[in-house]
Amino acid sequence: MNLPHDQFLAELAAILGPRGLSRDNDVVDPWLTDWRGRYHGAALALAAPADTAEVSAVMALCARYGVPVVPQGGNSGMSGGATPDPDGTALLLSLRRMNAIRTIDPAAQQAVCEAGVVLQALHEAAEAQGLRFPLTLGGKGSATIGGLISTNAGGTQVLRHGVMKAQVLGLEVVLPDGQIFDALTPLRKDNRGFDLKQLFIGSEGTLGIVTAATLRLVPAISDRIVVWAGLESIHAARALLLHCEAALGNAIEGFEVLPQPCLDAVLAYLPDARTPLNGRHAWHALIEVVATGDAVAPLRDAVEAALAAAFDRGMVQDAVLSASEAQAEAFWTLRDSISAAERARGPAMQHDISVPVAGMPAFIESASRTIEAAWPGTRAIGYGHLGDGNIHFHVGAPAGTERDTWESGAGKAISRRVHDLVTAAGGSISAEHGIGQLKRTELERLADPVRLDLMRRIKAALDPRELLNPGKLVALAPESGNA
Amino acid sequence: MNLPHDQFLAELAAILGPRGLSRDNDVVDPWLTDWRGRYHGAALALAAPADTAEVSAVMALCARYGVPVVPQGGNSGMSGGATPDPDGTALLLSLRRMNAIRTIDPAAQQAVCEAGVVLQALHEAAEAQGLRFPLTLGGKGSATIGGLISTNAGGTQVLRHGVMKAQVLGLEVVLPDGQIFDALTPLRKDNRGFDLKQLFIGSEGTLGIVTAATLRLVPAISDRIVVWAGLESIHAARALLLHCEAALGNAIEGFEVLPQPCLDAVLAYLPDARTPLNGRHAWHALIEVVATGDAVAPLRDAVEAALAAAFDRGMVQDAVLSASEAQAEAFWTLRDSISAAERARGPAMQHDISVPVAGMPAFIESASRTIEAAWPGTRAIGYGHLGDGNIHFHVGAPAGTERDTWESGAGKAISRRVHDLVTAAGGSISAEHGIGQLKRTELERLADPVRLDLMRRIKAALDPRELLNPGKLVALAPESGNA
Repeated sequence: MNLPHDQFLAELAAILGPRGLSRDNDVVDPWLTDWRGRYHGAALALAAPADTAEVSAVMALCARYGVPVVPQGGNSGMSGGATPDPDGTALLLSLRRMNAIRTIDPAAQQAVCEAGVVLQALHEAAEAQGLRFPLTLGGKGSATIGGLISTNAGGTQVLRHGVMKAQVLGLEVVLPDGQIFDALTPLRKDNRGFDLKQLFIGSEGTLGIVTAATLRLVPAISDRIVVWAGLESIHAARALLLHCEAALGNAIEGFEVLPQPCLDAVLAYLPDARTPLNGRHAWHALIEVVATGDAVAPLRDAVEAALAAAFDRGMVQDAVLSASEAQAEAFWTLRDSISAAERARGPAMQHDISVPVAGMPAFIESASRTIEAAWPGTRAIGYGHLGDGNIHFHVGAPAGTERDTWESGAGKAISRRVHDLVTAAGGSISAEHGIGQLKRTELERLADPVRLDLMRRIKAALDPRELLNPGKLVALAPESGNA
Repeated sequence: MNLPHDQFLAELAAILGPRGLSRDNDVVDPWLTDWRGRYHGAALALAAPADTAEVSAVMALCARYGVPVVPQGGNSGMSGGATPDPDGTALLLSLRRMNAIRTIDPAAQQAVCEAGVVLQALHEAAEAQGLRFPLTLGGKGSATIGGLISTNAGGTQVLRHGVMKAQVLGLEVVLPDGQIFDALTPLRKDNRGFDLKQLFIGSEGTLGIVTAATLRLVPAISDRIVVWAGLESIHAARALLLHCEAALGNAIEGFEVLPQPCLDAVLAYLPDARTPLNGRHAWHALIEVVATGDAVAPLRDAVEAALAAAFDRGMVQDAVLSASEAQAEAFWTLRDSISAAERARGPAMQHDISVPVAGMPAFIESASRTIEAAWPGTRAIGYGHLGDGNIHFHVGAPAGTERDTWESGAGKAISRRVHDLVTAAGGSISAEHGIGQLKRTELERLADPVRLDLMRRIKAALDPRELLNPGKLVALAPESGNA
């Protein structure tokens, strides 16, 4: 690469001013490693534009000089999608300074947020209006709206409210040449051709820079109950889910499952935790039921009636309803600690996968058997969001295994096998974490060639020089690397 | 054009067999005029493939010979999107023979339908399983699933269930070169890059041929009540809608509005119709409230309580609840007869438009005033789906006007002005009927150039030779016509 660096950087500085541009290692370095610590990159500089006009000017400048751009929000992604290549040719474009909630309209139940708004800040702004933003996840204190849109984030409320895509009513995007695509005005019905905003959601910064979005809000919760249920099998969990959906409809906001060994690991990991049920059960379900609005039947009565019917039909072995908000939180803490508890047990390969909802129980059983038989001594565990077909499938190393050699050897082979099994079941090798750098090779290996070809054609149509987030998600030619 | 016709037709016949190909005028002609009778086309032949493999072979053949293809479902579109050009160079590709419901899965609440399945047939198949397909419209006896997807159809249940896009869980599409893009398997969570299926929904056959879809089903209705309410103003209607949504939540399935003169026209047009309320009101609202599932509070009590509160707050002047299914149907008949009743009154320009929901009342008032002032003697009337911001805005000619000269003169100028007003309000010149041939010039005139440019780039990426439905929706160059 043979850039007229000084000229480019001088023009960049003129656009961004001193607050918007840094080449100071102390400032830039923290953003060059992904938060899991797997990827380490380098960058020409860190650009932090203050508004959409500055993003537009920066993109036009980068297009003129042929400088690649890596957009970044809270840098809390799981797949290395916001970490630049180590060659240092790219500009790191942080959207964090654009953190204004431009408007919030309680009557329309909408908020227009800039890309750098942190999820937690949006939650608080919505609550102040008696509303809520119906998507949440562990990284809510750092994840930004722009990053959540670019990765089409999921979380624990997807069953009722859908993934990020379902929350986006309008979008503002700066294209690779600096043009601004303004589709912020939300229309519930608009049939003027291709739904372009859908293309940018989940595109991991490879087609354009999301600078703002109009997001939907929903009424605040007036009551909630968390049920913890002990079940005979994962098939019973699926039957219970269908039963609850029929009986309680949209009141079901979350339906998580975990096997007994998973709960055992959490109880061993959290010193003060108590088991919700006295007995042991092959599987456990955590069910969140909520009420909103003024004209709803008493929630507890409805939940108790639904569970009584589930007992009668043999779907449930034991169950308890949260008696207080503190107990509801305690149940969720068990669920939210699984990942950490599993990591504490030793090396494990983690897989963020999905299959069609109806096929999930059979998949967990057969995939666990297949992996444990092929790699003796391993432990396969599936847990997570049964309600939307997304399971976190972990495979723990045999006791006493050395982490690094196992992860790069047998662990890698296990992941390939898991992805083969998911693909054969019609599922996805990335349910909610995206492709980024982590799964690009696996996507190339396993995706339908027609799908890959369509993705390449669209990438070429919007970013023919591959300046936007090179090395992530999709390249114009297989394994071609940067432009 | 200089086709080796005979060779092309011979190869086509070999693919399709005698049942799948016709050049008989008696067979072909009915499909060469759109159902409103505005467009008359011509075609090389009528191809009616029996399955996806035949569609694929036909597309590959047409690509090889450079023959344009016009896909068609029930031929009941409102914008001429399924009528070929009069030059007769295109192949008319009917999907009507592909009318199998491949699978219907009550547990998963999904159906896989071929493109030619008629909407009414899907309704009946779902009902037989205790479910329903939550989208309906006047043309349900002829409209096909493929056409509904290609035009992203709306209808009267959008408020609760969304447009066609929201019903499509998976899609099978044949690309212009004959490749089959199989994305039928529905995954609730799948973050493997661009959401390609969204591109094809609403693309009016300009990017690919939809051959099948996986559609969501919802529980059957266990009870419904239709409310007819008399209101002081369109602003009161908006307040009532927000009130009902807060009080009754997802039970609100439809919220239609019409002004008193509109109801007068219907009552004059339908000899046996009765007015639902005794008094006269500036505006009327029809509200459909439904119950599903086994654990719902009595619907009538909830609706009566919500209406009582609306009276207390001065949102409603008078209201009546349907006492029987017959009365519920009678209320809907009034609503469904507006279009015919308005047509019977004389020449009128009809506009299928949307603006942001919150701005709809103000828009109807100001647009009506503007048009009636600029064209003295005209009558502007807005009615329709207030709940989703989609209003059918009709402008009636002054009494005694001759239809043809008015429609092509003042009427055309009025439509342009209406579209200007909608665009200035951040709205859409096509809420649910699509662009087709009817609005292509207006789209070119009024759309954001950035949006048009993105649409052209995507069209060029997927169909660079413009063989798919030329002359509809988008052309590679403005007003360039066919390739």
